[in-house]
Amino acid sequence: MSEAPPHQIVTACVVIIGNEILSGRTQDTNLNYIAKGLVERGVRLREARVIPDVPAVIVDTINEMRAKYDYVFTTGGIGPTHDDITAECIASAFGVPLILNPEARRILVERYKTGELNEARLRMARTPEGASLVANPVSAAPGFRMGNVYVMAGVPRIAQAMFDGIKYELTGGPPILSRTVNCNLPEGTIAKGLGEVQERHPDVDIGSYPTFSRGAPEVNIVLRGADSGRLDLAAEEVAAMVRAEGGNPVIS
Amino acid sequence: MSEAPPHQIVTACVVIIGNEILSGRTQDTNLNYIAKGLVERGVRLREARVIPDVPAVIVDTINEMRAKYDYVFTTGGIGPTHDDITAECIASAFGVPLILNPEARRILVERYKTGELNEARLRMARTPEGASLVANPVSAAPGFRMGNVYVMAGVPRIAQAMFDGIKYELTGGPPILSRTVNCNLPEGTIAKGLGEVQERHPDVDIGSYPTFSRGAPEVNIVLRGADSGRLDLAAEEVAAMVRAEGGNPVIS
Repeated sequence: MSEAPPHQIVTACVVIIGNEILSGRTQDTNLNYIAKGLVERGVRLREARVIPDVPAVIVDTINEMRAKYDYVFTTGGIGPTHDDITAECIASAFGVPLILNPEARRILVERYKTGELNEARLRMARTPEGASLVANPVSAAPGFRMGNVYVMAGVPRIAQAMFDGIKYELTGGPPILSRTVNCNLPEGTIAKGLGEVQERHPDVDIGSYPTFSRGAPEVNIVLRGADSGRLDLAAEEVAAMVRAEGGNPVIS
Repeated sequence: MSEAPPHQIVTACVVIIGNEILSGRTQDTNLNYIAKGLVERGVRLREARVIPDVPAVIVDTINEMRAKYDYVFTTGGIGPTHDDITAECIASAFGVPLILNPEARRILVERYKTGELNEARLRMARTPEGASLVANPVSAAPGFRMGNVYVMAGVPRIAQAMFDGIKYELTGGPPILSRTVNCNLPEGTIAKGLGEVQERHPDVDIGSYPTFSRGAPEVNIVLRGADSGRLDLAAEEVAAMVRAEGGNPVIS
């Protein structure tokens, strides 16, 4: 979308397209990268889906998600091989033809030596009619934006470079601020007190994340919200509660 | 489900419940672990969703997924804190009361010293009425199975230990076999030939995954299917095609 959304809270969904994620062959890392970038931009990531390389599933998912959220980001399926079907599925979802995009073709002509730009590689210049391109500073073949759907590569280095390129054109809402209170107590010890802080601060979203990474139980309490002062207040209350339970809280 | 599903293809979905994944704070690794285990068991993972800690979203997602797939695996939201709401949402999805599960309570009584088993920790003994327990060899507090839905912890060490414990009770379909052909050519060079192999072998699912990890372009071609002989044949055809294009294929 080129205009600011009419409401203040801006939402997004990530759609990861790829059998290789569902088969366990590949550990996805793009979602985490995009999620962090969206926080920076004040865009709320509400959902992510991992779906297979099945045209009907891709088309239906895109249509459901683009109606539901302000932005949709897809990764995967825009390479030169037969299993790269995202571009045609997006065209189908929008009910427009898939065209050989002249600008994308020009980029590929510049990138490849004569003879290298075969029919398969030219597939990477196809976009839905009306799409604008998303730059690929790694390997040239571009992604594209169609309506509120950004279509990016699956290879993490490329996906992440593409996202970096479009991140600043996103119209975000108020930034989402956070504080973290780390503490050296088991989660069960602070659970009651933490629930009480949450009840006193309905405008702050408090999450509790236990880890056992350093051998002993440890909890990171993450507070999120739009108001810096209210966040500080709630974080201080969490820290005071941790101290009262005999723990050593560290706010960051 | 205690009975074998009536059809031969057994399907599954993973539902990752947690704001921390959507905010980018946490990189999920449970999906990849579960995905690999399901392949071993002959269960087709068709979809994964990451959803926030919002009751209505959890309830609706569970009801949609449990109707659609043979198995649903959830991670996250079963600890002692106020943001751990998965158990009550599953009860709500199934339309049954949330009870203090006597067996789960017994496990927690054994685990915690007198005085440690406070009200918050006892929350971890709540299950929907009719659920059976999923063992937690790491930190005692169990997950549970309700119908075809397995509810597991979010902390990777615990989630993965829980999944290991229930993996062998899953009724799988025919195992999904695979071959990988690694080659040192760019994807665009082999794309046409690969598409032709795919057309000759509609019973084999061929995916092409480029990497740039060793500096030079490289492709892993993954072939999946149920018939070992047909897979070998298709893999040999891919290797021959790579050789014809001047590459050096390695089948594994």
